[in-house]
Amino acid sequence: MSSNTFGTLFRFTTFGESHGPALGCVIDGTPPGITLAEADIQVWLDRRRPGQSRFTTQRREPDQARILSGVFEGRTTGTPIAVLIENVDARPKDYGEIKDKFRPGHADYTYWVKYGLRDHRGGGRASARETAMRVAAGAVARKVLSALVPGGVVIRGALIQIGPHKVDRARWDWGAVEENPFFCPDRIAAQSWEGYLDEVRRRGSSCGAVIEVTAAGAPAGLGAPVYGKLDADLAAAMMGINAVKAVEIGAGFRAAELSGEENADEMRMEGGKVSFLSNNAGGILGGISTGQDIVVRFAVKPTSSILAPRRTVDVHGRDTEISTRGRHDPCVGIRAVPVGEAMMACVLADHLLRHRGQCGP
Amino acid sequence: MSSNTFGTLFRFTTFGESHGPALGCVIDGTPPGITLAEADIQVWLDRRRPGQSRFTTQRREPDQARILSGVFEGRTTGTPIAVLIENVDARPKDYGEIKDKFRPGHADYTYWVKYGLRDHRGGGRASARETAMRVAAGAVARKVLSALVPGGVVIRGALIQIGPHKVDRARWDWGAVEENPFFCPDRIAAQSWEGYLDEVRRRGSSCGAVIEVTAAGAPAGLGAPVYGKLDADLAAAMMGINAVKAVEIGAGFRAAELSGEENADEMRMEGGKVSFLSNNAGGILGGISTGQDIVVRFAVKPTSSILAPRRTVDVHGRDTEISTRGRHDPCVGIRAVPVGEAMMACVLADHLLRHRGQCGP
Amino acid sequence: MSSNTFGTLFRFTTFGESHGPALGCVIDGTPPGITLAEADIQVWLDRRRPGQSRFTTQRREPDQARILSGVFEGRTTGTPIAVLIENVDARPKDYGEIKDKFRPGHADYTYWVKYGLRDHRGGGRASARETAMRVAAGAVARKVLSALVPGGVVIRGALIQIGPHKVDRARWDWGAVEENPFFCPDRIAAQSWEGYLDEVRRRGSSCGAVIEVTAAGAPAGLGAPVYGKLDADLAAAMMGINAVKAVEIGAGFRAAELSGEENADEMRMEGGKVSFLSNNAGGILGGISTGQDIVVRFAVKPTSSILAPRRTVDVHGRDTEISTRGRHDPCVGIRAVPVGEAMMACVLADHLLRHRGQCGP
Amino acid sequence: MSSNTFGTLFRFTTFGESHGPALGCVIDGTPPGITLAEADIQVWLDRRRPGQSRFTTQRREPDQARILSGVFEGRTTGTPIAVLIENVDARPKDYGEIKDKFRPGHADYTYWVKYGLRDHRGGGRASARETAMRVAAGAVARKVLSALVPGGVVIRGALIQIGPHKVDRARWDWGAVEENPFFCPDRIAAQSWEGYLDEVRRRGSSCGAVIEVTAAGAPAGLGAPVYGKLDADLAAAMMGINAVKAVEIGAGFRAAELSGEENADEMRMEGGKVSFLSNNAGGILGGISTGQDIVVRFAVKPTSSILAPRRTVDVHGRDTEISTRGRHDPCVGIRAVPVGEAMMACVLADHLLRHRGQCGP
Repeated sequence: MSSNTFGTLFRFTTFGESHGPALGCVIDGTPPGITLAEADIQVWLDRRRPGQSRFTTQRREPDQARILSGVFEGRTTGTPIAVLIENVDARPKDYGEIKDKFRPGHADYTYWVKYGLRDHRGGGRASARETAMRVAAGAVARKVLSALVPGGVVIRGALIQIGPHKVDRARWDWGAVEENPFFCPDRIAAQSWEGYLDEVRRRGSSCGAVIEVTAAGAPAGLGAPVYGKLDADLAAAMMGINAVKAVEIGAGFRAAELSGEENADEMRMEGGKVSFLSNNAGGILGGISTGQDIVVRFAVKPTSSILAPRRTVDVHGRDTEISTRGRHDPCVGIRAVPVGEAMMACVLADHLLRHRGQCGP
Repeated sequence: MSSNTFGTLFRFTTFGESHGPALGCVIDGTPPGITLAEADIQVWLDRRRPGQSRFTTQRREPDQARILSGVFEGRTTGTPIAVLIENVDARPKDYGEIKDKFRPGHADYTYWVKYGLRDHRGGGRASARETAMRVAAGAVARKVLSALVPGGVVIRGALIQIGPHKVDRARWDWGAVEENPFFCPDRIAAQSWEGYLDEVRRRGSSCGAVIEVTAAGAPAGLGAPVYGKLDADLAAAMMGINAVKAVEIGAGFRAAELSGEENADEMRMEGGKVSFLSNNAGGILGGISTGQDIVVRFAVKPTSSILAPRRTVDVHGRDTEISTRGRHDPCVGIRAVPVGEAMMACVLADHLLRHRGQCGP
Repeated sequence: MSSNTFGTLFRFTTFGESHGPALGCVIDGTPPGITLAEADIQVWLDRRRPGQSRFTTQRREPDQARILSGVFEGRTTGTPIAVLIENVDARPKDYGEIKDKFRPGHADYTYWVKYGLRDHRGGGRASARETAMRVAAGAVARKVLSALVPGGVVIRGALIQIGPHKVDRARWDWGAVEENPFFCPDRIAAQSWEGYLDEVRRRGSSCGAVIEVTAAGAPAGLGAPVYGKLDADLAAAMMGINAVKAVEIGAGFRAAELSGEENADEMRMEGGKVSFLSNNAGGILGGISTGQDIVVRFAVKPTSSILAPRRTVDVHGRDTEISTRGRHDPCVGIRAVPVGEAMMACVLADHLLRHRGQCGP
Repeated sequence: MSSNTFGTLFRFTTFGESHGPALGCVIDGTPPGITLAEADIQVWLDRRRPGQSRFTTQRREPDQARILSGVFEGRTTGTPIAVLIENVDARPKDYGEIKDKFRPGHADYTYWVKYGLRDHRGGGRASARETAMRVAAGAVARKVLSALVPGGVVIRGALIQIGPHKVDRARWDWGAVEENPFFCPDRIAAQSWEGYLDEVRRRGSSCGAVIEVTAAGAPAGLGAPVYGKLDADLAAAMMGINAVKAVEIGAGFRAAELSGEENADEMRMEGGKVSFLSNNAGGILGGISTGQDIVVRFAVKPTSSILAPRRTVDVHGRDTEISTRGRHDPCVGIRAVPVGEAMMACVLADHLLRHRGQCGP
């Protein structure tokens, strides 16, 4: 019911504006006794941090996370964990023009209609900067998964499409993901994307992207029937990331084109355990995990803050034009990769605790 | 946090198994004083009812809704509205074979893993039969929207793809939707679909579908930033419908291929009101409605209960085969149309009350 | 956030009016595999049923519970359990006079102010009849506690005061509770109460009562710090019962008069386990159970539907008088005993699952 | 479901330990456009601040509140308001002895049993220091009430009993409350309490107290039937304050002794409005406000950290003794007065928004 809280048992609440004094989150419901240090969070924040290549916003934010509570002598106590990041490179003046004009494709207009006023500094609360706190919460969720799932859960994300350019899945290499500025699993595609994105930047334009996030090792049985479905919660988690317009699980939209025989993943016993011969389900059947890899994809629309002038209106109800300067990601989808991973981790940690609550260990 | 409750302020809880004595829902949070009769619910249930054409399950259920509470002298009282439907044509024996075997692509296996036991009669709680109660709740949500939104909100759904066959959007006619057994807005496509689906049935196979649901007239300002986003809630609502594997808003996955200029819907003043020149956003920006049509699409996978034999395992951990007899929809996506409309209505009614709570009338 | 739902993980939603067709509840979150039959619920409903002595309302309701879902082959499946009781002895006409007049001390007026209309038949939703469904939910909660707590949890309630007449705690005998129509643990008091209550009935008056409910065997560690405190949830549970005006835990109000030395229950090791030398805490410290008996007391005000004429106003804003005929409990506190027990069971079952979710088994 | 969040639509989440780096809260759901400055919060924090008289803990905390988000150009934006207070006078070493020993009557033991470890510095999360954040949230709630309720809502609290010494209600003067270190409304009682409490301190003992909080001006119609009752939420709110063991509304426990005629507050029309001739209901009937003063009382047990040696056990399961040094309130009930007021404000603001959501303005 809160609009700034995510999750049920493992849950976090975020706060803070893009150009306010700080961003923060409060992570509640973490099991006690799990080792946790600021470095465990920082490592994931660093992956998402802006300004690391010419393909992301040039805003220089160290995004240094500070744990304010809930950890004692290196372990979680079971009480709420607050994480704070101070904004360092805020430049509210950069945003003079958007004070009165609405960027087409941006939340500027809808916030203003809803609330009658808005914090126009860099998008305020609607800024992608908020996603840093999702990554912080995701870091804690990963620790929870490590502590509670024997063998652990490996969550990985990759950019599989930028603008119209897709990866070749035959060349997929998770190792490549950390080697290029796009989290691209296809080394050859990554190279060609550089030229494409340089061109997009040069034109003052922007482009969209598709991200795929997978979780390997999640136990079967997570999720719930009917309204607390694991896939429904994942859909909400991913669709709730800034600029996301589509989410699919497993075969996704392609499932509509398959026959019943093609789609239904057959099962065999293997070494005493159930094994599936395919994974069109994306690891989820009837809202509950099957034990296979959980596979989610989501599409991010192009950044709406672009140099190219666009027709719009202003707060006084007058027609006008806008051309957005300032520091923006030409493809906000790139930095959505660690955010998608974090949301996956949070959803799984939450469902793990929910399952344990109802069904026991 | 409940796995059988949907919504925050306008919320409903459903119960009942496919072959148990009854299905029901409890709708809570309805504003008082709204006219409501059983007929207001029945009209929508009838749209979803099975057995109305040869393209849906031949189970004969009148799906007669009875209101047990919350309505007095023809008006809602503000207290919970319980709706009950008795199961009439339950034939548990039809499901003998699935008692011990898991249908590939079905929730059979995951329920069993999660709970250690399951009501195997017709899928129990995982049956699409549960969606009747979503339609009942949606009927009440429509009444709420009518009562509170000046001019009303028109929610309509259509099947835009069946198997690999898509409609031609140039031929879209909402009038056609009620004239064919597919809720297809393209009369020509509807005709060819008959032959296609007859063939699917004849083969004992099944196929998937894509549904589009739109809401016209929803006021700008509904939704919430960050985690109670209107699009995130819609994504959860649609992904939570049985067999749905993908959801998109507005341009959806195609948004990834657009440039920033193409994607951002420009704005102009028109007759003193803000008007958009396109609707790639699908009526939602930053999680908040813009006042444009809200447009959602979702993909339904092919029915997993098929005659064609599939390899599977049983509850004793043995390899086996299964071929599902009994009465099943060859394309469960058809009857998902009224269900998608209902979920849209419920999400909008909920956000209308949430908006009113925080921001006033 | 729902006004008709109680609990977090073990949660139930009730519906139904006093003189509508039926009452019901939907119990969600129950662990799977627990044996449950209608008789398990009926036994507790029978304790609360009206018309069993001349000291409760003469309305004749069999209160026959029917399980509509969530149980398969005698065991809970983990899906929602719906319980339905049809109203048999509804006589809406008995309530003609209260249609337009507000009973002083009753919810008549506040429902009408809040909703602008109300179901005036016997108090509608505000009737004590709703508490039957709490007892049904409590019956399931007891089964959950039996299944999950080694040794079980024994929950017992007693009437310890009726009007100004208190029991003598020195004569406390749990065996006596089932032997008199008051759930009174003091046989001598019970006898004198008969005369007192006969006299109250004869005068067309009513009286209040104090109930004590204890839970023995609840493990230490249930509850949560700060806002999900076990005592806070118990306070809400008991204060939420119709006509309750006060709740206390352990020493309760008397704790204010104790010195720090007197109040703090000292601890000793006994047989390898922590043992307390007193129980002023009522089994709860810092919102978390200590392992001692959990002790709650609550006060029920006198029934507001009385024969004695009272000054009031009507829906037309006119001064008038009211004298309530019809069938009412002269002391609604008596039947609150099984209701208080049920709420204790529900709160403990909920916290047991919540604890297991966060902290494991 | 969160153990560190309070409220439904107006809701806040707190974090922070007594001797950690900071305390904070995140207040979500505030309507937009309400004027809010740090001074609006500080004024209430200052009332609760320790070290203002010899009768409260000598810990010197300025409790300087900093708003980190949700306010822009002096007005709430509708997004979450984070408030931070840095701990200045933390002295973890003062608490050496309680590291391994459990203080009888304190949460030391239950936290340790529940979580298997605990932040022993000054009680960690169980410290009364957490209540500073309730006061901060309450300050924002008061602003909400001022903005939305015509005429405003006046919330006031008073200490009406300390140890066994009660005020004389005939001498009640709200003006006196701010003139003595006890928030005592009876000037003569306040004087005698000084001697009593000096004596308690001298003995190294502690004492309990009873607080009464009233709200005048709250509109009729707030609250909800059955499980979201205004009195149930108030009971949870007050019982959830540290060391509270009892809560009552209006006549409270005394209602059990009244006859139906005495208890039922009669009604008359007065100047076109409904007026009540008494207020045994404490302003709440059937869980919904009547428009009268809302009256809540709660009892605070004596501080458990006392100098007088008490028998206890340690974390190693050995019998021992404890005598608590360090800085403690001899009567923690005194500073509970502003906390009770704050919780009243939060509950009313929440129900105001909930009512507006369902029933409109």
